[in-house]
Amino acid sequence: MDFALDARTLELREQLTAFMDEHVYPIEATYQEQLDAAPDVWAPPPIIEPAKEAARSQGLWNLFLPGEDGAGLTNLQYAPLCEVLGRSLHIAPVATNCAAPDTGNMEVLHMFGTPEQQEQWLTPLLAGEIRSAFAMTEPRVASSDATNIETSIVRDGDEYVINGRKWYISGAMNPNAKVFILMGKTDPSADRHRQQSMILVPRDTPGVEVLRGMKVLGYDDRDHGGHAEIDFTDVRVPASNLIGEEGAGFAIAQARLGPGRIHHCMRLVGIAERSLELMVERAASRVAFGKPLSDQGVIRDWIAESRVRIEQLRLLTLKAAWLMDTVGNKGAHTEIQAIKIAAPATVEWIVDKAVQVHGAGGLSQDFPVAEWYAQVRTLRFADGPDEVHKNALARHEIRRMTARA
Amino acid sequence: MDFALDARTLELREQLTAFMDEHVYPIEATYQEQLDAAPDVWAPPPIIEPAKEAARSQGLWNLFLPGEDGAGLTNLQYAPLCEVLGRSLHIAPVATNCAAPDTGNMEVLHMFGTPEQQEQWLTPLLAGEIRSAFAMTEPRVASSDATNIETSIVRDGDEYVINGRKWYISGAMNPNAKVFILMGKTDPSADRHRQQSMILVPRDTPGVEVLRGMKVLGYDDRDHGGHAEIDFTDVRVPASNLIGEEGAGFAIAQARLGPGRIHHCMRLVGIAERSLELMVERAASRVAFGKPLSDQGVIRDWIAESRVRIEQLRLLTLKAAWLMDTVGNKGAHTEIQAIKIAAPATVEWIVDKAVQVHGAGGLSQDFPVAEWYAQVRTLRFADGPDEVHKNALARHEIRRMTARA
Amino acid sequence: MDFALDARTLELREQLTAFMDEHVYPIEATYQEQLDAAPDVWAPPPIIEPAKEAARSQGLWNLFLPGEDGAGLTNLQYAPLCEVLGRSLHIAPVATNCAAPDTGNMEVLHMFGTPEQQEQWLTPLLAGEIRSAFAMTEPRVASSDATNIETSIVRDGDEYVINGRKWYISGAMNPNAKVFILMGKTDPSADRHRQQSMILVPRDTPGVEVLRGMKVLGYDDRDHGGHAEIDFTDVRVPASNLIGEEGAGFAIAQARLGPGRIHHCMRLVGIAERSLELMVERAASRVAFGKPLSDQGVIRDWIAESRVRIEQLRLLTLKAAWLMDTVGNKGAHTEIQAIKIAAPATVEWIVDKAVQVHGAGGLSQDFPVAEWYAQVRTLRFADGPDEVHKNALARHEIRRMTARA
Amino acid sequence: MDFALDARTLELREQLTAFMDEHVYPIEATYQEQLDAAPDVWAPPPIIEPAKEAARSQGLWNLFLPGEDGAGLTNLQYAPLCEVLGRSLHIAPVATNCAAPDTGNMEVLHMFGTPEQQEQWLTPLLAGEIRSAFAMTEPRVASSDATNIETSIVRDGDEYVINGRKWYISGAMNPNAKVFILMGKTDPSADRHRQQSMILVPRDTPGVEVLRGMKVLGYDDRDHGGHAEIDFTDVRVPASNLIGEEGAGFAIAQARLGPGRIHHCMRLVGIAERSLELMVERAASRVAFGKPLSDQGVIRDWIAESRVRIEQLRLLTLKAAWLMDTVGNKGAHTEIQAIKIAAPATVEWIVDKAVQVHGAGGLSQDFPVAEWYAQVRTLRFADGPDEVHKNALARHEIRRMTARA
Repeated sequence: MDFALDARTLELREQLTAFMDEHVYPIEATYQEQLDAAPDVWAPPPIIEPAKEAARSQGLWNLFLPGEDGAGLTNLQYAPLCEVLGRSLHIAPVATNCAAPDTGNMEVLHMFGTPEQQEQWLTPLLAGEIRSAFAMTEPRVASSDATNIETSIVRDGDEYVINGRKWYISGAMNPNAKVFILMGKTDPSADRHRQQSMILVPRDTPGVEVLRGMKVLGYDDRDHGGHAEIDFTDVRVPASNLIGEEGAGFAIAQARLGPGRIHHCMRLVGIAERSLELMVERAASRVAFGKPLSDQGVIRDWIAESRVRIEQLRLLTLKAAWLMDTVGNKGAHTEIQAIKIAAPATVEWIVDKAVQVHGAGGLSQDFPVAEWYAQVRTLRFADGPDEVHKNALARHEIRRMTARA
Repeated sequence: MDFALDARTLELREQLTAFMDEHVYPIEATYQEQLDAAPDVWAPPPIIEPAKEAARSQGLWNLFLPGEDGAGLTNLQYAPLCEVLGRSLHIAPVATNCAAPDTGNMEVLHMFGTPEQQEQWLTPLLAGEIRSAFAMTEPRVASSDATNIETSIVRDGDEYVINGRKWYISGAMNPNAKVFILMGKTDPSADRHRQQSMILVPRDTPGVEVLRGMKVLGYDDRDHGGHAEIDFTDVRVPASNLIGEEGAGFAIAQARLGPGRIHHCMRLVGIAERSLELMVERAASRVAFGKPLSDQGVIRDWIAESRVRIEQLRLLTLKAAWLMDTVGNKGAHTEIQAIKIAAPATVEWIVDKAVQVHGAGGLSQDFPVAEWYAQVRTLRFADGPDEVHKNALARHEIRRMTARA
Repeated sequence: MDFALDARTLELREQLTAFMDEHVYPIEATYQEQLDAAPDVWAPPPIIEPAKEAARSQGLWNLFLPGEDGAGLTNLQYAPLCEVLGRSLHIAPVATNCAAPDTGNMEVLHMFGTPEQQEQWLTPLLAGEIRSAFAMTEPRVASSDATNIETSIVRDGDEYVINGRKWYISGAMNPNAKVFILMGKTDPSADRHRQQSMILVPRDTPGVEVLRGMKVLGYDDRDHGGHAEIDFTDVRVPASNLIGEEGAGFAIAQARLGPGRIHHCMRLVGIAERSLELMVERAASRVAFGKPLSDQGVIRDWIAESRVRIEQLRLLTLKAAWLMDTVGNKGAHTEIQAIKIAAPATVEWIVDKAVQVHGAGGLSQDFPVAEWYAQVRTLRFADGPDEVHKNALARHEIRRMTARA
Repeated sequence: MDFALDARTLELREQLTAFMDEHVYPIEATYQEQLDAAPDVWAPPPIIEPAKEAARSQGLWNLFLPGEDGAGLTNLQYAPLCEVLGRSLHIAPVATNCAAPDTGNMEVLHMFGTPEQQEQWLTPLLAGEIRSAFAMTEPRVASSDATNIETSIVRDGDEYVINGRKWYISGAMNPNAKVFILMGKTDPSADRHRQQSMILVPRDTPGVEVLRGMKVLGYDDRDHGGHAEIDFTDVRVPASNLIGEEGAGFAIAQARLGPGRIHHCMRLVGIAERSLELMVERAASRVAFGKPLSDQGVIRDWIAESRVRIEQLRLLTLKAAWLMDTVGNKGAHTEIQAIKIAAPATVEWIVDKAVQVHGAGGLSQDFPVAEWYAQVRTLRFADGPDEVHKNALARHEIRRMTARA
């Protein structure tokens, strides 16, 4: 057992931290100003382009992707870098072409796409030229239960015909999100986990109607392409747009989830670390009733608890990454679920305290903690509510323990 | 001891509930549409006017104000009505001229205003013709400690000259908020609680510059006049604009707080009740993994806990109101602090669960729970962070108990 | 609505407080010494007798019992007295003949007993000459579900024959507990709530074997007659020992529960108040790192939270009592469940903090908080685990709300 | 980074698990019976002797001690073994001569003892022939602040004279605890952390009076030698009994703490794992309201949360052990504090749920969860209350972060 990061990870982390110091943190204010100044634009403001250039030229690009097409890192090597990226959530992941949902979509295309699909979509995505979206959640059903999905994908000759309604499709308001990976049902009568398929739907296909941007606690997340509600009415795409075979949708979704959750959780650890820094900074510089807030026992309690919780959460996430690398998705199952449960709750608690220490400003546009608060809250149901994951983890635990007895 | 509401309260509550059913709930959707359609307007949309008319004609007007100028209700009589108003937080309080911060400002003018001040400002406020704001919180200091306030009010002949910066001045973005009650220091060298004074500052006074609307998470609360940041530079008002005497600011603020907290807390109880209703409704109508969410044990746990907590919170708030009526502000001190501590935390917990049961929709613009979530969160530091109140309550408790021993 | 106690309650509370000061608190130490000195005795030590005498002579006797046989108080009048008794949990309830389980048993006999049953058992119980026990919980099944009960009561001629195993039968180790009210099944094939009956089983009936005292953490609660495990093998009692009719057991148990829960909860409020006092006293007198513990922010937070929670809990319990008095058991159903859920969790939290402030001593035999900690913990499953009550309350809430919609 | 245990640890863990299966679990019931049958004996019952023999003969002996005198394991190697020992807390640590407080005392003698001290006390301790105690906590002061210690150690010629009162001296009721390491003040006027010294006090020294066994929630922990209150009146020991030099007491205590906390926390992890197993087992085998408890959503939530929390806690504890091994006590400072804060709170939560799933039995003598509940609760203030550690950790965090800024 060894808790030290390997040499390559340490080196990359140092390089990435320098990149953050030089190209990311300094542009945060301008980024927000440009965004505010263009209220109808659903894309990152132009100030991000030099950062992208810099990242690419420094090899800090597609870090998430294993193999030759990406940086070739293991999950365990990428995870600490992902934490660093999380510290500037709006800018750093996009600047390094490591932003969701493109990362997951690129992984799917990388693992399951045909050479034609890869050439058409993966190549420009890896180059950071286009963006993409992942169309899974539906407004009319509890989508955490994949058998509830109502969107249909029906074969008709050389085409598939798609009908359904999706919402909270992150990134899809951005006109440069040129393609959607859509999850729907090809065979509602098949086994629970063989009913679904995934298919590529180019944005400009007739019948695709992007209706509106959904909000998250008042935020529209325009720079990330928002969260679209989309209507699919008799949308026809070539049969060759199917990813994998019919009925493989659930399995592909599962494969997509593992690394995605590690990324989400490590970005959350980054948010937690920076929140704690802001909490301490504010507490040390603000005086009330004759002493700095950092001398107040309750605030010290929050600071200590935050440190204790972050350390535990990071280790568990890293272990999940290590398991993914060493025994695969299935062997890492419990840990992948565990971090999905632990991370949002833990980091929400920490960000909430950072907000509180900032007083009224804590929920304002002047400090990043407000947006993090909203962002973290969504992760308690993104990819399925915590409660669904807890139930599944418990069922597995019960089965394991009673089998042994 | 008697837990039954009196006849007048019961009658008014029934009348108010009918008013909500007829004039408030039915316009909620249109209200939001009109608001969305006029993105630069910082005032309630026009659909509210008929509701105001109806409320006024039915005598459901100025319910908060004791005495002949208002409805003449005690705090205990108004409290259950205030809960009903809280159920439609954007519309009902304004429609009945019972909206903060006007209510507190009217109380201050009613209790401490000169006849001239009352004629100029109280009369049109009571008539619902103008709005007002209360300028206390400052961006540069921890304003929960009143001795931190930096805004100066300096006598110069027949005038006072005001200099300072305020933020989160709710309602002040609305051009119809014609007057601000400003808290500043007339004598920084006086005793802690005699340094501050309150003064009336007409909106159009030279030197008053409304800079921007502060946000609460992603919300600007335009229909409520937002939350302004305001600069006061060499602002001159007649000496007769002072409320009460020099040094009375802290005492007036305290007097203003008591009823205000009861109002806040009862509105929160209304939010909690409606959140619980929405939680149950959603849980009963949504199916996952073969059964309605309302059959899930964890969700039932939330429903039960919500009921248990609401009942306790309401009773404590009503008792605080009763103490205000029977033994006054000072005798109700502990209970007033206790509800300030209990209400935001309790209702936040409940709204959070309502959000979770709604899944992604829970943070969207489609369900009111998202806005309530943001609104309730602010109350954990509005009027001073919970931690300040807990510390004060504890100090009082320690003093009382050790004195007795 | 009126939060003031009535004159009789105030007078009795004053009288009872004086009684506590004179006869209860001063003997607490000796009580414990006598108990420790007689390790095999399962009954209150002799020092309690003068206190009983005093209580009886002052009319502070059978306060719990409505009607002419008792003090004739309403639930709302008795509740605040019960809080006072809870402050010295070992002594005060017994000294005033207001101790569980005798109180519930006396209520059952009072309401449902035949004149013969009353003469034989109720009269000496009211006189404080004998004690009793209530035999419901079984070791082999989840007894919170009454249909699980396995003990059989079978008619055989003029007798009933009882077979089964019970445990945690409080008070039954005391040889002076002369009679047990036993719950068993007379008809396992009847409807869920008509299978059970209650029957009087004199302690000395052949076939009754008191096996051992069950512990609660490390406590045996000898002075309260412990918590017995009892075997019933072919125990024969006259048919006239049945309470009410066959199949009435569940209904009688429900009737017994309402007042019992109010008593439990008010005693808990008394424990909470005294715990808070001890917490403050200790915190004010103990110095660490240069200042008294009562200057530590975290401890102040606990003190404030304790006060806030106690006030809410007491009001809800009093309201439940008022509802019992005005609309009866059924109308008070939600509130009775709510206090069962709220009280143990709330008071456990407070006692836990009192323990913590006492450091190592907090779990020792030198401070009462340790025993309270154990006592309160049991109430999270006594009368059924919290989770069962929450589930039932939620089901009721869901039904009510969806019916209305 | 590598989360796999090394070969030696895996082998030892397998060997130790087999030892538990063969020699420990099977004697648990008899151990308790022998203990109950000899109510005045303050030592492990005789059934433990064969287990000790077996452990010793298998080399499962003094596993905690690095270097040639012990098993020569690193902290990281011993930690997973310590978790296994924690699963049978009463028997396994003693059987393997790895029980507190002897382990810490042996470490102190090993690191700081003179050859004479080692020969006299360390040799028989390592052989498991005698036991020892560590006399630090005092009843009259908040002992978490070492400057509060009142016990005096005064040089008088060739002797030291000791006066003071100690309590909760674990193990000291056992007559075979032949020596106490006592912490007292040699120079109250020195710097905060140079006032204290440690000295060896043989049990039979005149002036040492063992007064009574302190309880923990009703438990006397007799088999572990209880928790003694001890009076030291003019106790004279040779000057050569001092450990290290005068004023070194605080530093020695710190050195003793690091490994001790890892041991405590890993034992707690073992308790948590076995509690979770018992929780699942009970839940799966108990039926209420028509289905096993393990089908109840709330109980599944507890099971899942328990797993999530255990995984995080174990990893953090192992990392602390690794830091101890690689960068030493000082470099591991934050993590050592963090596990002291995290472990008791986490495991208390889990054991509490295991208790609840067992119903009334959960607090009884029939299931080990009751004792664990009491045991774990003590660790929230043993070695100093959580609050002291949180404050220190926060201070350190604030200093580190503000220095960097």
